[in-house]
Amino acid sequence: MTNEIHYHDYLQLDKILNAQSPESNKHHLPAHDEMLFIIIHQAYELWFKQLHHEVDSISAIMKKPALNDNSPELQTVVHRLNRFATILRVLVHQIDIMETMTPMDFLDFRNMLRPASGFQSWQFKELEAKLGLKFQQRHGKEYYISQLRKEHIDIIKKAESEKSLLELVNAWLERMPLAPAPGPYPNPPPTGEGMANTQASLIQDASISSQADFWNEYRIAYVNSLAEEEKNNLEAFDEMFFEKPRTLNPEPQTSNPERSLSSSACRSALFIMLYRGYPLLQLPFQLLNILLEIDEQLSSWRYRHMNMVHRMIGTRIGTGGSSGKDYLKAAADKHYIFKEIAQLNSFLIERRKLPGLPRELEIRLGFAG
Amino acid sequence: MTNEIHYHDYLQLDKILNAQSPESNKHHLPAHDEMLFIIIHQAYELWFKQLHHEVDSISAIMKKPALNDNSPELQTVVHRLNRFATILRVLVHQIDIMETMTPMDFLDFRNMLRPASGFQSWQFKELEAKLGLKFQQRHGKEYYISQLRKEHIDIIKKAESEKSLLELVNAWLERMPLAPAPGPYPNPPPTGEGMANTQASLIQDASISSQADFWNEYRIAYVNSLAEEEKNNLEAFDEMFFEKPRTLNPEPQTSNPERSLSSSACRSALFIMLYRGYPLLQLPFQLLNILLEIDEQLSSWRYRHMNMVHRMIGTRIGTGGSSGKDYLKAAADKHYIFKEIAQLNSFLIERRKLPGLPRELEIRLGFAG
Amino acid sequence: MTNEIHYHDYLQLDKILNAQSPESNKHHLPAHDEMLFIIIHQAYELWFKQLHHEVDSISAIMKKPALNDNSPELQTVVHRLNRFATILRVLVHQIDIMETMTPMDFLDFRNMLRPASGFQSWQFKELEAKLGLKFQQRHGKEYYISQLRKEHIDIIKKAESEKSLLELVNAWLERMPLAPAPGPYPNPPPTGEGMANTQASLIQDASISSQADFWNEYRIAYVNSLAEEEKNNLEAFDEMFFEKPRTLNPEPQTSNPERSLSSSACRSALFIMLYRGYPLLQLPFQLLNILLEIDEQLSSWRYRHMNMVHRMIGTRIGTGGSSGKDYLKAAADKHYIFKEIAQLNSFLIERRKLPGLPRELEIRLGFAG
Amino acid sequence: MTNEIHYHDYLQLDKILNAQSPESNKHHLPAHDEMLFIIIHQAYELWFKQLHHEVDSISAIMKKPALNDNSPELQTVVHRLNRFATILRVLVHQIDIMETMTPMDFLDFRNMLRPASGFQSWQFKELEAKLGLKFQQRHGKEYYISQLRKEHIDIIKKAESEKSLLELVNAWLERMPLAPAPGPYPNPPPTGEGMANTQASLIQDASISSQADFWNEYRIAYVNSLAEEEKNNLEAFDEMFFEKPRTLNPEPQTSNPERSLSSSACRSALFIMLYRGYPLLQLPFQLLNILLEIDEQLSSWRYRHMNMVHRMIGTRIGTGGSSGKDYLKAAADKHYIFKEIAQLNSFLIERRKLPGLPRELEIRLGFAG
Repeated sequence: MTNEIHYHDYLQLDKILNAQSPESNKHHLPAHDEMLFIIIHQAYELWFKQLHHEVDSISAIMKKPALNDNSPELQTVVHRLNRFATILRVLVHQIDIMETMTPMDFLDFRNMLRPASGFQSWQFKELEAKLGLKFQQRHGKEYYISQLRKEHIDIIKKAESEKSLLELVNAWLERMPLAPAPGPYPNPPPTGEGMANTQASLIQDASISSQADFWNEYRIAYVNSLAEEEKNNLEAFDEMFFEKPRTLNPEPQTSNPERSLSSSACRSALFIMLYRGYPLLQLPFQLLNILLEIDEQLSSWRYRHMNMVHRMIGTRIGTGGSSGKDYLKAAADKHYIFKEIAQLNSFLIERRKLPGLPRELEIRLGFAG
Repeated sequence: MTNEIHYHDYLQLDKILNAQSPESNKHHLPAHDEMLFIIIHQAYELWFKQLHHEVDSISAIMKKPALNDNSPELQTVVHRLNRFATILRVLVHQIDIMETMTPMDFLDFRNMLRPASGFQSWQFKELEAKLGLKFQQRHGKEYYISQLRKEHIDIIKKAESEKSLLELVNAWLERMPLAPAPGPYPNPPPTGEGMANTQASLIQDASISSQADFWNEYRIAYVNSLAEEEKNNLEAFDEMFFEKPRTLNPEPQTSNPERSLSSSACRSALFIMLYRGYPLLQLPFQLLNILLEIDEQLSSWRYRHMNMVHRMIGTRIGTGGSSGKDYLKAAADKHYIFKEIAQLNSFLIERRKLPGLPRELEIRLGFAG
Repeated sequence: MTNEIHYHDYLQLDKILNAQSPESNKHHLPAHDEMLFIIIHQAYELWFKQLHHEVDSISAIMKKPALNDNSPELQTVVHRLNRFATILRVLVHQIDIMETMTPMDFLDFRNMLRPASGFQSWQFKELEAKLGLKFQQRHGKEYYISQLRKEHIDIIKKAESEKSLLELVNAWLERMPLAPAPGPYPNPPPTGEGMANTQASLIQDASISSQADFWNEYRIAYVNSLAEEEKNNLEAFDEMFFEKPRTLNPEPQTSNPERSLSSSACRSALFIMLYRGYPLLQLPFQLLNILLEIDEQLSSWRYRHMNMVHRMIGTRIGTGGSSGKDYLKAAADKHYIFKEIAQLNSFLIERRKLPGLPRELEIRLGFAG
Repeated sequence: MTNEIHYHDYLQLDKILNAQSPESNKHHLPAHDEMLFIIIHQAYELWFKQLHHEVDSISAIMKKPALNDNSPELQTVVHRLNRFATILRVLVHQIDIMETMTPMDFLDFRNMLRPASGFQSWQFKELEAKLGLKFQQRHGKEYYISQLRKEHIDIIKKAESEKSLLELVNAWLERMPLAPAPGPYPNPPPTGEGMANTQASLIQDASISSQADFWNEYRIAYVNSLAEEEKNNLEAFDEMFFEKPRTLNPEPQTSNPERSLSSSACRSALFIMLYRGYPLLQLPFQLLNILLEIDEQLSSWRYRHMNMVHRMIGTRIGTGGSSGKDYLKAAADKHYIFKEIAQLNSFLIERRKLPGLPRELEIRLGFAG
């Protein structure tokens, strides 16, 4: 039958296995290790494609105005983020293979590749943009423009112009008003679209005052938990969770251009961390946690990559003209995408000192049964 | 300039990133995880191509009649075998990614793939053949013939017909007559081509009798090292190192069709393990060791693969019609390629009881300086 | 102040770092690698203690008659099982360190250790027992009795006599009557204690007949999904989920001594796998999945351990008198503790063919909001 | 017999398994995760002890005035350094386990540990000192003095006062005068003790002028290999290999207090990298390479450790009063011990442009046979 699938065709191996044309062969100076160099980069790009496939599907779900708690959607998001992190772990490990190429072996063909550079991996830059890295946060902003082709820049710019995963997470957290601003100033009532998800709706109508009470209570407990030398953490606390705190007008919530998460999103995220034991908060907690894991793996990847480049070419200029090591170092230091979530861990208090939740709220955080 | 290399073209990403056509899309029943299924298999096949690149280059060096000790050749062999093992380690790790696909997710597209099967990865089977797995040693011998296309069977058959790495290692060990048969029967003088490598030539003219003495002495030391319940190891010792031992005609050395290493190759390998401290034996020792590492990683790969299949489809028939798990289990148990080298470890004795080497031989095992 | 904690005292490093007394030193034949041998085994035992700490806490929670869905309990169980698996992964990796000890290095002190043997690690055997490995399922049953001290045998026997994790999982699944036996025979009403957990109670009063209908419908869908050569899977299906199926008296449910999970537990587990997207089933699904991961890691550990022993001593008798490799091989093949959960994957059907759930049930599988 | 060894006694498990006394138990506020916290740190300390065992044995060998090439010594050094790196890889992986402890779980007992801190791990600081980290290179120099007990400071100070591995490597490289300073100024004749090792002696009497010629030739080839924007690398080249280059008095060779490797050591190291294919240079090349691997793993450990601390306590003050994250970050950035070896990779040239070696030297770099 003509429709029978064969492994070889299904995987299009004629394409995949015939896509390696070492430059050193063209120069009649065959360098054994160039094949490795090509194949490892192709393997990276294949996996980048898969990471795009995952993040696209995750963002599509998160974009729905009301992520439905009573459907598999949130579970699917968490599952795919976990896969994302699992792939990153293999990508970090893969550097071990690259490190079997010694500097002398690389020199055999290195000059033949100029000015190509790993810096031109537009898929990776597009991925950073989809996750939430903004152009203005990039190290060496203008640099990637000069190195990349117009069509690739356009791809990245387009990704930058759309809602990033980080923005979608922020919106999802904001729709979940677990943590309204404390009194005396009024808690902005949750309004309009995007509010229909259960995590949000079941709580939004809880008495405003009891919620304001909650945050006042929590703030006091937090102050009391601080060691003497940590007392100035309170200022950071107020800024994180109430922007211009203790003043009459806390809006707009994201007035600080450096911030990606609004105060109200931060309150929701902290609430999730604190009360993760309630059924409704279990998957949200996993979601926040896996974002930190992704940041950490991306960071490890950049860091090991930097060490590898350092070992490979020392302080010489990379094939693309960059000082590869310095770029990677700066990127490893600066390109944490979900760093504000990590910072929330500064504002936890001991479980046994947590304010109790009103019975009414507890019920809503539980199962229907 | 037209000759400028660009990352995107150099890696032929137009081919690589456009080689994924999920069947489920064609059936208008898109299954998210099919992309992962395609990409992970493509990543495996890319790495298999790299493994072929390495083993081909290694075999080409090992095929030279006289592997030159005073050139980088042996070092290159060891270096590339180490890379081979490093890649295998990543391939084992990569199974973690596959395991993020749950059985239910697989079912969404599994039936659309029939009768394709990972069993049809001719690159992997060709690789096993190049390393030294013989057709008659394969589990389910006829099976792969029925599953594979003629052109792929031909590729594998061709690999089986050529000198495998295992055979080349055997020949290399035989050319290194460190361990001739003990008296009274005469030590076959090393003859002819393929004997010019230093590891061989420097020793081959050492007095036959002193070498026979060596093995008699070693055999006695070994017997003395055996615990009571191990006494029958002596028989295995004699068979391993002297084939029909203590009889008058130990030839032909590889009369046992199950054996891949001749008695004389085994003697050389054991000698290397025992006296690996001498400069001349350091790289040979590393070479033997890395072969065991490769076998172990291949074995781990099959084993984890089997566990993964078991978790994925339980006891159901695979898409190719095989009971995937049973095949992989049998292959994991049987397909050790370098198992005879591992067995040599049964015949070591304590360092402090090792026979001393004649001064003349010691000099030849050292550096020129 | 006297109450200040110091790292060194807190960790009791005076004990930990002074617990290495190489035998080879006592024999005045110092063997460098014996320190490694001691320390790696101590590191293993430390981690075994931690694994006990986790499994004890998990079992304590699972033992509660009504595991409360509206408390953090199930989440805690899943979290700690994940940690259990994470530790196992490091233990597998740790074998890499052991493999840096060559057979010759081991021989330097191996005989001084007789008859000690890794086989005497009572903590590991106790752990297997706590997870669910029964004495009669052990390879070489009588063997461990002859090797272990009475006090250690007693510890293991005690663990065998108590509810294992596997039994607790079985009871937890049985309390969750998502999958009663199909008609005409009556669904045993959930009775007595241990039934109060939400996952159970919210469903137990759903109409019996609709549940019987469900399983009849599912059984038909499963039959239709089978390929021609898989048709005999139906028998296995009936045995797995209805014990003596289609007969009048399916009780007692665990009449098959080989089975650890009853038919009704298997039905619940399958139901969880099929409908894991519903909020109430998300953590139960994670729980089942992580048990398979634990089995797989334990299996990898035994398998790599076996390969390592093979590489280290070949076919010689271990220091404890065992043929270490054969024991480890048999244990790797036989000691899957949660294998019945893995087998359930043979009985899944495609998501798009799943029977829909009654609206009433859907509500109960969701959140309260 | 009373002398029979038992696993339990041999490993002193009564000590090891009874060295965990959680503070939270003493406070009657048992925190489940404190056991993990204790055990993982004990596991780290056990492995640190093993790393000390390895580095001590390595340094003892390297201290011998004439490391004997015709003995197993250099191979032993390389083997043990490889083990050192293998252990570090597991220590990095072990952070995965720590990361299963969430910040809220840590808070349950964190305050009970003050002011204990991982910073008080004197074994790790002593290890850094033995490898070659000097007090003046440490980030937060005075800091560790204020945190550590006097007896532990003394231990570290003692390690700092002895020859570090880095200094021993420098001396070993200097004894191997493969790379004397180029003319016209005279090549200092290798003198006195410590010069007897073959790698040294076989070359030291080679004609000075031919060696000076070699470096002049290499320097020209290097200049020619530089891209336009790299031209100032020549200055770095001269400084690296000839200290105050092209002047009349290049001595003393280590006048730069920032340098750990003298010019002549750097020349030897570069020579080894360039001509690693010659038998005599194979193990020296492996040795240099594994030192870079060790630096990289230490760096990865600090980096992942930093990320983990960041995730765990955000920007709060650590239990020991430090801002743990900042210290670890600075240490990761600054504490590369073998960084000068990595820098040598900036000064390689393509293999096909390497100066040929005089036949006489080639012979001496080979085997005796």
